[in-house]
Amino acid sequence: MSAPDLILAGGHLLTMNAGNDVLVDGAVAIAGGAILAVDTLEGLTERYPGTPVKHLPDTVLMPGLVNTHAHSGFLRGTAEHLPVWDWLTLHINPMHRMLQPHEAKAASMLCYAESVLGGTTTIVDMWRYMDGSAEAAETIGNRLVAVPYVGEHPDYDYFDTLDMNERLIEDWHRKADGRINVWVGLEHLFYANEAGQQRAIDMAKKHDTGFHTHCSEAEIEVAEFEKRYGKRPMAVLEDLGFFETPRSMIAHAVWLDPSEVELISKRTVSVAHNPVSNMKLASGIAPIADMLAAGVPVGIGTDGEKENNNFDMFEEMKVASLLGKLKDRDAAAMDSWDVLRMATVGGAKAVGLDHEIGSIEPGKRADIIAVRADTPRMTPLFGSGPWFNLQHNLVHAVRGSDVDMTMIDGRIVVENGELKTGDLAAIIDEIHAVAPPLFERRAKWLAENESVQWNTESNG
Amino acid sequence: MSAPDLILAGGHLLTMNAGNDVLVDGAVAIAGGAILAVDTLEGLTERYPGTPVKHLPDTVLMPGLVNTHAHSGFLRGTAEHLPVWDWLTLHINPMHRMLQPHEAKAASMLCYAESVLGGTTTIVDMWRYMDGSAEAAETIGNRLVAVPYVGEHPDYDYFDTLDMNERLIEDWHRKADGRINVWVGLEHLFYANEAGQQRAIDMAKKHDTGFHTHCSEAEIEVAEFEKRYGKRPMAVLEDLGFFETPRSMIAHAVWLDPSEVELISKRTVSVAHNPVSNMKLASGIAPIADMLAAGVPVGIGTDGEKENNNFDMFEEMKVASLLGKLKDRDAAAMDSWDVLRMATVGGAKAVGLDHEIGSIEPGKRADIIAVRADTPRMTPLFGSGPWFNLQHNLVHAVRGSDVDMTMIDGRIVVENGELKTGDLAAIIDEIHAVAPPLFERRAKWLAENESVQWNTESNG
Repeated sequence: MSAPDLILAGGHLLTMNAGNDVLVDGAVAIAGGAILAVDTLEGLTERYPGTPVKHLPDTVLMPGLVNTHAHSGFLRGTAEHLPVWDWLTLHINPMHRMLQPHEAKAASMLCYAESVLGGTTTIVDMWRYMDGSAEAAETIGNRLVAVPYVGEHPDYDYFDTLDMNERLIEDWHRKADGRINVWVGLEHLFYANEAGQQRAIDMAKKHDTGFHTHCSEAEIEVAEFEKRYGKRPMAVLEDLGFFETPRSMIAHAVWLDPSEVELISKRTVSVAHNPVSNMKLASGIAPIADMLAAGVPVGIGTDGEKENNNFDMFEEMKVASLLGKLKDRDAAAMDSWDVLRMATVGGAKAVGLDHEIGSIEPGKRADIIAVRADTPRMTPLFGSGPWFNLQHNLVHAVRGSDVDMTMIDGRIVVENGELKTGDLAAIIDEIHAVAPPLFERRAKWLAENESVQWNTESNG
Repeated sequence: MSAPDLILAGGHLLTMNAGNDVLVDGAVAIAGGAILAVDTLEGLTERYPGTPVKHLPDTVLMPGLVNTHAHSGFLRGTAEHLPVWDWLTLHINPMHRMLQPHEAKAASMLCYAESVLGGTTTIVDMWRYMDGSAEAAETIGNRLVAVPYVGEHPDYDYFDTLDMNERLIEDWHRKADGRINVWVGLEHLFYANEAGQQRAIDMAKKHDTGFHTHCSEAEIEVAEFEKRYGKRPMAVLEDLGFFETPRSMIAHAVWLDPSEVELISKRTVSVAHNPVSNMKLASGIAPIADMLAAGVPVGIGTDGEKENNNFDMFEEMKVASLLGKLKDRDAAAMDSWDVLRMATVGGAKAVGLDHEIGSIEPGKRADIIAVRADTPRMTPLFGSGPWFNLQHNLVHAVRGSDVDMTMIDGRIVVENGELKTGDLAAIIDEIHAVAPPLFERRAKWLAENESVQWNTESNG
């Protein structure tokens, strides 16, 4: 067995292993970017004498968070409080028509910088021109599941194509020391014609990778599926063959009925739950407790800057808990452990990476964050004994800005709350340089295309 | 007119005046703790040459937030995911039985430190032994509306009494340069017998101060009011005379029907909306849009550390927006300006202090915060022009930890994100010193009083 490069020691260590074990004075021995051993600091320094120790005594060490559904972007706060029709036709789709690769890369730089600063180590990003996103992940150092926003339909010919998606898989899948994965994406089933749908399925099988799409977000989608196919959405995806891909992950899944939950629980299908987005866009409340009870792997996602409007997975955990309690008016529903598991090892399972990440256990990659415990909102903190409250503080009190250190693949990308892998001010400045020209092109396009209407035949 | 002591200059200035005006390069001239003038920095330096200028160029200056309903405490994370019965009988009420004044003061120190660090400048605190709270507010420097948790009923004889409440008014109302106000409090109408209810009303009238209580939080309360009084809760409070006090503020008001909204809109009655608490305790969704439309002054409150579990009014604003949109599934409901007004000038009006605080306007006290604009979650930021998004970023993206500076009554209590008026580490240490003994006394009391049951006749 190799000797560790480093021992990382915190005040508490939350493993998120099968027993949700918490170690007081816990520490991790790290070798070659992987977790070699987990024990108390005393135990590890005895076992590995002379190994350098990084002490973070006033923190809780825990697995990096897995954001299972996000979109890079920089429309934050500029497309708000609108019915979905106006939101899509006046802001989102015209933005996609006008977006250029350098703008898309700037958006990913911002999204990934914000994410790692807030303790997210893995991001499932559905975005455009994702060579730039992969380059951004190489720079920032985050783990990435890149899923292009694909449209294969005459009405959506301004999105990425399956050709672009396949080339991205060939160029980037499992690259950057394995930190980058590329999946097959579709913005929505209705954004592809039949040939495109079939090709997406075939491509995921051929490259042995995942498939990701939005489905059952808005209630009207269910009616549209019934109209087009005579069945509910999950049954349609099953019939078309999407659930024969190595892994399908459905974003939102708000309107699944019990038969659909049962169906997906029997396939390699996971769900990305986006509670803030589902409230903000007034989509509804997903039956997450039922999914978990049925054994469906459920992760948590922030959705994009235009639906949330930040990438704070701690906030998302809190809202997941709150929304789960509101759903059937049961204050005892959606336990903090359930929420923490969705945001860590459950999310890792949802993206098929639970053998690599999601918990602090020997053999996994060293994706570890340190959360400050010296704040009022973490007070009091009991990591053992009868008043044990660590899990509740993490879910309901902490926010992403309490993250002191973020390590990904053994590399420290955030230290003392500061980004170490990029110039944050320059990343922000770049957004302020690229956003206005894009918005101006969009305004020009809208002025010249007043007659373009939302095609109800082509949207969910 | 006096000369200003200081000009405070930010990148943007959000006035929250009647027009929601925003000034680019806005600045405030401050004299004797009051706002003397509001203009661009250029305008103010011309008008007041030689005045010292505090530049905070990468921030948004805005009014300090008004938390209209909170409880000091240190049960954070130790009483979770429980049905209300268990929560009250096993954790909350036995804590109240055992609480001692020095513990109560330590709780207020923590609560007020956390609050000012997160940009809250005024706190309505319903708590116990509130001499300690008043002393804490003197030290930390926050504005306080102190409202004792009063019980005047044999079943609740371990709460504060109206005698204690009256003495607190006499000793502290309008003290600390007017920063401290004392109201008459009742934990709940059912926590007082008839004589106590009448005395509370008379005391508020006699001292020309406000009255605050919890009401219509849980749906079962409405049935209990019907059973006891044959009427809905607001009609009962009206009949008993509570709405003849100078001001009544109702915490929660989740289950008000249209007749009750109309009734309170015609009285000097305001509402403290607690969206996180209402979700976490599975209480329901208050009809806030209806109240605002009817002209009821509505403020936002975090509720306590045991119901939330933090005091972040930025988070509370976001959840207020999200919950307002989910209520009737309308993504265009609960505009960001409505939310910002509730958290500032609307909250000030709800507590009858809108002549003193709540907006940055000449003549008001200088309760001003600076929110960092140099963060990913504030990017992009447009404070003018067609993509204006400042209000949306503040409500949906920012969190309390983005507060760089907090000024209250012209005094800087938080600078560079650090508490200047107290030793934060000592405040946290004190909680870790006092919490375990209280919890141990509570456990002992519970073990000795196994037969004590929740009296359904005495609880809402």
